[in-house]
Amino acid sequence: MSTATRQRASIQRVRPSVLGGRYPAKAVIGRPVDVTADIVGDSHDLLAAVVQYQRDGGTGWQEAWLQLERNDRWEGSFTPAALGRVRFRVVAWVDHLSTWVRDTRTKTAAGMLEEVDLAVGAEIYARRAKRARDKDRERLRAVAAQLTDASLDAAARADRATSEDIAGLARRYDSRAHAVRSATYEVEIDRERAAFSTWYELFPRSASPDPERPGTLRDVIDRLDHVKGMGFDVVYLPPIHPIGVSHRKGRNNSVHAAPDDPGSPWAVGGPEGGHLDIHPELGTAADLRALVAACQDRGMELALDIAFQCSPDHPWVSEHPEWFKQRPDGSIQYAENPPKKYQDIYPIDFETPDADALWAALKGVFEHWIAEGVRIFRVDNPHTKSFAFWEWCLGELKAEHPGCIFLAEAFTRPKVMYELAMRGFNHSYTYFTWRRHKQEIEEYYTELFHTEVADFFRPNSWPNTPDILTDQLQHGGRAMYVQRLVLAATLTANYGMYGPAFELMWSANRPGAEEYLDNEKYEIKTWDADQQHWSLAEVIRLVNGIRHRHPALQQDRTLHFHEIKNDQLLAYSKTDRSGRDVVLIIVNLDPYNTHAGTTWLDLEALGLQPDTDHFELVDVFGGGTYHWHGPENFVQLDPHVAPAHIFEIRLPPRDERDHDPGV
Amino acid sequence: MSTATRQRASIQRVRPSVLGGRYPAKAVIGRPVDVTADIVGDSHDLLAAVVQYQRDGGTGWQEAWLQLERNDRWEGSFTPAALGRVRFRVVAWVDHLSTWVRDTRTKTAAGMLEEVDLAVGAEIYARRAKRARDKDRERLRAVAAQLTDASLDAAARADRATSEDIAGLARRYDSRAHAVRSATYEVEIDRERAAFSTWYELFPRSASPDPERPGTLRDVIDRLDHVKGMGFDVVYLPPIHPIGVSHRKGRNNSVHAAPDDPGSPWAVGGPEGGHLDIHPELGTAADLRALVAACQDRGMELALDIAFQCSPDHPWVSEHPEWFKQRPDGSIQYAENPPKKYQDIYPIDFETPDADALWAALKGVFEHWIAEGVRIFRVDNPHTKSFAFWEWCLGELKAEHPGCIFLAEAFTRPKVMYELAMRGFNHSYTYFTWRRHKQEIEEYYTELFHTEVADFFRPNSWPNTPDILTDQLQHGGRAMYVQRLVLAATLTANYGMYGPAFELMWSANRPGAEEYLDNEKYEIKTWDADQQHWSLAEVIRLVNGIRHRHPALQQDRTLHFHEIKNDQLLAYSKTDRSGRDVVLIIVNLDPYNTHAGTTWLDLEALGLQPDTDHFELVDVFGGGTYHWHGPENFVQLDPHVAPAHIFEIRLPPRDERDHDPGV
Repeated sequence: MSTATRQRASIQRVRPSVLGGRYPAKAVIGRPVDVTADIVGDSHDLLAAVVQYQRDGGTGWQEAWLQLERNDRWEGSFTPAALGRVRFRVVAWVDHLSTWVRDTRTKTAAGMLEEVDLAVGAEIYARRAKRARDKDRERLRAVAAQLTDASLDAAARADRATSEDIAGLARRYDSRAHAVRSATYEVEIDRERAAFSTWYELFPRSASPDPERPGTLRDVIDRLDHVKGMGFDVVYLPPIHPIGVSHRKGRNNSVHAAPDDPGSPWAVGGPEGGHLDIHPELGTAADLRALVAACQDRGMELALDIAFQCSPDHPWVSEHPEWFKQRPDGSIQYAENPPKKYQDIYPIDFETPDADALWAALKGVFEHWIAEGVRIFRVDNPHTKSFAFWEWCLGELKAEHPGCIFLAEAFTRPKVMYELAMRGFNHSYTYFTWRRHKQEIEEYYTELFHTEVADFFRPNSWPNTPDILTDQLQHGGRAMYVQRLVLAATLTANYGMYGPAFELMWSANRPGAEEYLDNEKYEIKTWDADQQHWSLAEVIRLVNGIRHRHPALQQDRTLHFHEIKNDQLLAYSKTDRSGRDVVLIIVNLDPYNTHAGTTWLDLEALGLQPDTDHFELVDVFGGGTYHWHGPENFVQLDPHVAPAHIFEIRLPPRDERDHDPGV
Repeated sequence: MSTATRQRASIQRVRPSVLGGRYPAKAVIGRPVDVTADIVGDSHDLLAAVVQYQRDGGTGWQEAWLQLERNDRWEGSFTPAALGRVRFRVVAWVDHLSTWVRDTRTKTAAGMLEEVDLAVGAEIYARRAKRARDKDRERLRAVAAQLTDASLDAAARADRATSEDIAGLARRYDSRAHAVRSATYEVEIDRERAAFSTWYELFPRSASPDPERPGTLRDVIDRLDHVKGMGFDVVYLPPIHPIGVSHRKGRNNSVHAAPDDPGSPWAVGGPEGGHLDIHPELGTAADLRALVAACQDRGMELALDIAFQCSPDHPWVSEHPEWFKQRPDGSIQYAENPPKKYQDIYPIDFETPDADALWAALKGVFEHWIAEGVRIFRVDNPHTKSFAFWEWCLGELKAEHPGCIFLAEAFTRPKVMYELAMRGFNHSYTYFTWRRHKQEIEEYYTELFHTEVADFFRPNSWPNTPDILTDQLQHGGRAMYVQRLVLAATLTANYGMYGPAFELMWSANRPGAEEYLDNEKYEIKTWDADQQHWSLAEVIRLVNGIRHRHPALQQDRTLHFHEIKNDQLLAYSKTDRSGRDVVLIIVNLDPYNTHAGTTWLDLEALGLQPDTDHFELVDVFGGGTYHWHGPENFVQLDPHVAPAHIFEIRLPPRDERDHDPGV
């Protein structure tokens, strides 16, 4: 009964990981997964460490070396080559060869090398040789033999045996004696569009070119070129299902609908069917498939909105009354948040004894639309459905269809939003919508990208939604729209907009509410997309084009805030993984007044040497080439001309930088 | 095969916990353990949560309610009543009664209460009644019946059923349907001295009153009253074992010892024995037991130093050569940190194939001295022994002797120090020794007390050790000594000093080294404890007395830094758990010059109302009563008079504060 172990290393805080491995972290196919771990050993001996990884269900491990960075933090990476889940773990051990190399070099330099030190090295090399084969074995054996050949100069023997050349070879044959292995962690591998996407939301019933008839899915097809032309790649539709008539809400959310009021698409279900059906006025399943195909033809994708709630007329209400909360008088409990009542909506009761059937039916809704070719879903109010359900449902769906992307529409408390992301949502709505001051933007995105949150939460920034017309968009005018566009599009790699409203800058709110007047949720609109004198389409096209041309803007975690001495000016940069594409954004957060300030740039974060004197910036948004000097530069932005700079930094060629004599 | 669960709550980030439960957290008998967890549920329903706890090996759980504080963080506590390990877990569920109470109150206030709402409440009360007995059952049944009695006024029925009185009763009979349970976490319960202790280190061989003969353990007994008089409660001795003669170090760490040089006590083992033996010149096992008893008589305790390394003359070297690293020439590898050599020391090889016997022998050393009555051990350089060994050894020893306290003497990289604390050391040396500037002190103690580190790492602050005479103590004079004393004694509840050197302010260093000249490690000294004109004894007695009288200073985690506008002035406060004892410390960090500055106090952290105008402070260190007003107050400290204020805040009586009309 041996309790003793000869392991001498310890591995802690492995990342990416979510709550110590309770949930999978998130990554993207073809993009390196950065692995870090705190690894310590006793004494002064050097350690070696690798990350080992395999596809879920696979056997055998691939591996990559970790390097010691600082403060006992080790770093490395692997690049997933397939969708689905990848498992990884960290392995570390005492590296006796590297320890000997380091000590022998020190002793040689100090002139205190002894014959016995070389004999110790010979033993190590002889052990490595035994594990090697063919030529490598011969080379390592020769080193071992030479080390104890007293006829040769001791320093020369030490030099040879401590060369990177030979020590590097021997490193491959380490027995890794007494290696320590971390727990195994999981990473969910999404496709590229999970990391970088640009969403445009529109109501198909308002897509008609003819004000006299409501729009259809076919009308949406006709709009696609316009949307594509602005640089969007995800077209997202509110629920397309039949709409309830009982307690239907009228225009401007009034409790009494007029006979011709179309109702809210989120009051799902009516006599014509429920979550598996298409509103007859929108079209047929064939129309939807045509729309899916038309999106694909243009390199775009269709996203559907899944809202798990039922109007009183939904077929489930009669077929499965036990899925809803019954009241003592036999009625079904409608949604309420006292004193507010939503009598047009029945929430689902996740404490139902019939939970098995309920869960299966809900998952079946996604499966139905997946069968129709849809792979992206925006999920309405997921925080009013059980977390356990989402973990199961999204896990099952992704196992079967690993390309699926789910966006959590939960504007609620931070820990609830994080919980949903941990349980499997690929994207999450954020507080961006309300974050407008410098300090709150800096704090929020630092939390999102530079804490453990980054391992599981992928923000999708929206300046507006059909539910939210913020105070700043009501009053800030065009400058504010442009500012919010630039921020959403450059702070996060995923962003979207409630398209026609943003594009045409609808700014009138229902009095006293942070909501659109004559909200499209309750009535059919006709957009005049040709109203070019009053449209942001060109600016949106410009910004989305910059996003597509600059890999830096397709990243989240490289976001870096820079100092600038004016509370109304916000400065931040992003780089791509190679560090060759660097974009610096400076935004005037005040939509009314010109502001000026002096930067204090972190030049290294911009890919420049810390002592860089001159560098060139091209403003790919406002235009112009700038010549800046060191960290301190003057900036002035008139919001009515251009509320932002989006600078491409012109880096010196790599060679030149590498040979900078200052380094 | 049901996968569906009806659980709707989720529990994350339970604390105290170490790396998600991998290691036990630390707590103290009789002191409440503050438990926190992030708990979220879906929808707007209210949750309820408890912490359940039991002694390790016990059955059945005791429990305490958690309360929702803010941002979905729940808090509660339990108070351990015995030493050893306690297990705890958090349980949470949807609280339908509280949800109904909240909604019913809102609806009543809005005048929208319906009969069916009361019927829903009646159902809930009827279910609770079924779980209750006797009178409680009758009361709850009566509430249920009354709720549906339409002959009574609806609002009156609602009022009764939503009263704290009756809802609180019903709360006890919640079925906790679909409750979620966290993982189980462990807390190691130490005795009070682990939380609050004051250490004095002395070399027994220097304790002789007669310069002509070396000191003994009996001489230490004669010194105890002096040490006790200064307010210390732990007397700690360097290793008391026989000392090696091979390669013995001479005075001032010279490589050649003179014949009468006594050698370093850390070169453990000689012809007279090893780790289980006492140096013959120090005395016998009986003398040690007498010293243990003499300490106990005075309410003090003896701490021994265990240094797991061997001189070449240690019996283990011949008895167990396989416990050491053999070199190819048959010699044993001495300690080295190239280019430094320590030929008087053989480190133990924790990769030995004989690890079982080695581990047992090392643990046996502690057991031997525990059998002699010792319960506190300072462990020398634990970071050069394997972490796995410590986890096993300390775990086994504490299971058998739960009162044991182990102090890790590891001045190494932060993550290694943390690793040792996680593996079981009750106390840890800290970087306090070198932290002297305001910002570095604030940052360091914020990391120690206000991050996850607080759950496992108990700092023991030492201004000096026989190994370390810092630059500031070499040059700062008496003011620096007093400053460092006040800081060590008030920043952390555990602190200690290398006593005679600190008390008598030995400040001469070996040239070029951060080490004492004529270091006691290599020679025998005679202290002149009566040299009162050149002693800090009175100041030490004063400071330690303040620590004993103020429970606030017996805490770590209540440390709170306050703003003060001068980089040389440091301001911080501590409170006891009740918040009734509040101490505010202001230190002038410059030992040469008078400094003045204006505070910006966090009045609430001082137990005062935020709008407090006048409050009284008594300087229990420098003397005097002060009358301050609000957060902004002028401070001036002349280091040559008193480098610090230690203020006792005179709080208004509790009643008065509670009835403050401003609140």
